[in-house]
Parts: sequence; structure tokens; C-alpha cells
Amino acid sequence: MTYYHSCMIHKSFDSAVSAVTEALKKEGFGILSQINISEKLKEKLGVDFKKYMILGACNPPLAYKALQAEDKIGVMLPCNVIVQEKESGTVEIAAIDPIASMAAAGNPVLAGIAAEVSGKLKRVVDSI
Amino acid sequence: MTYYHSCMIHKSFDSAVSAVTEALKKEGFGILSQINISEKLKEKLGVDFKKYMILGACNPPLAYKALQAEDKIGVMLPCNVIVQEKESGTVEIAAIDPIASMAAAGNPVLAGIAAEVSGKLKRVVDSI
Repeated sequence: MTYYHSCMIHKSFDSAVSAVTEALKKEGFGILSQINISEKLKEKLGVDFKKYMILGACNPPLAYKALQAEDKIGVMLPCNVIVQEKESGTVEIAAIDPIASMAAAGNPVLAGIAAEVSGKLKRVVDSI
Repeated sequence: MTYYHSCMIHKSFDSAVSAVTEALKKEGFGILSQINISEKLKEKLGVDFKKYMILGACNPPLAYKALQAEDKIGVMLPCNVIVQEKESGTVEIAAIDPIASMAAAGNPVLAGIAAEVSGKLKRVVDSI
């Protein structure tokens, strides 16, 4: 089992970030955090890294259910979607598959919620 | 295997957040994101939830190694540490154990890095 849903698209990096944000919104996810990895690695280590953005996506009703089912599941929230440039004009999108990551909790109620979130994130990736 | 390292401490919520931030710094982690879950749930759903903060912690050299070993591991970065109030003056801290969550990637180089990060996060939790 893989731990993400992914796709490759032909867009500029910035257009891809906008497209992902828009597609997430249609499935009820807002963005709670946005981390520009290439900027951070340049700032902290002085290294050059490809364009790479981590978007922390949260569907509030499902996050609330997950937190009620498993009070420490915040260590795996929000659900990340990454956007990375493979070459100029080609961008890969990958969303966490919470079925894989949350399996470690061994909580059947949580597993049901994770499956619902996984389905939504797969639709996000497939729609871009 | 559990998916987190945790401890219970007797401090105010805000002092606990400061203590965690300080302990993370000593192990080389900066905070890349800070999500106030109770505020978000109130804002989005109108519900009351206990004080609950997600700190997104990143050790830049280890994050860089992890990204080089596994280019989609950003779906599991940064490493989250949560602070939640159990009752007034009693706060639980829990840090993700990346050995558990990153096992899904099935990448032995990544597993070595995850073990190093796990050791650091365990020391953070034990030191608070």
C-alpha cells in the first residue's frame, strides 16, 4: 500500500498551487498551513532545492470527528498535500493517504474517518 | 507499536507551549507552523473544544536528508508535536513517532533518518 495519492500535471508551479487549493476547497478542505520548503532550506542550510510547497489541508467536520475518536491524532493533522516541480512546467501533486498513516493508531472509528478523508483527497488529486 | 511519544505535565497551557518550543530548539527543531485547533473549530464549526495546539517542528538537516531519500515524504512533514489541556493545570504533550508513520514508505534510508528524528523527539518529550 502506498502512503499518498499523486498525479503529474503540466502547469507552472504557482498555477499548480492555485489549482490544488481550489480543488481542496471543493471537497471542503481549507488550508491551515503553507510551508515553502525550498525557501526554508535556502534560509536554514543555504542549499538549493527544487520548488516544493507543503499545504496543510483540513476538513473541519472530519477533523473534529477524528479528534473525538482519537485525542492524539493531531500529531497527524492537518492532511498534507505537496506540490513539487519535477522540471520547468511539470509539477507533481501528492496528498497523504491517511488510511496508511493512521493505521498505526489501530482505532477502527478513526480508520472509517481516514477512509472518508482518503476518498476526498483522491478525488482532489484526480480532478486537477 | 504506538505512533507518538507523550508525557503529562503540570503547567498552564501557555507555559507548556513555551516549554515544548524551548525543548525542541535544544534538539535542533524550529517551529514551521502553529495551529490552534480549539480556535479553528470554534471559528469553522461553532463548537467548544479543549485547548489544543499543533506545533509543526522541523530539524532542517534531517528534513533535507529525508526529502533527498524520499521525494514525497513532505506529505508527512513537519513532525507535529501537540499540546492539549486535559484539565486546568494538567497538559499532555505528544510528539509524532516518525518510525511508525514513515514505515508506510518502505524506504530503509528514510527509516534510518526517522529513527534519528524519533530519538530526538523522545528526548524532547522526556525533558519537559
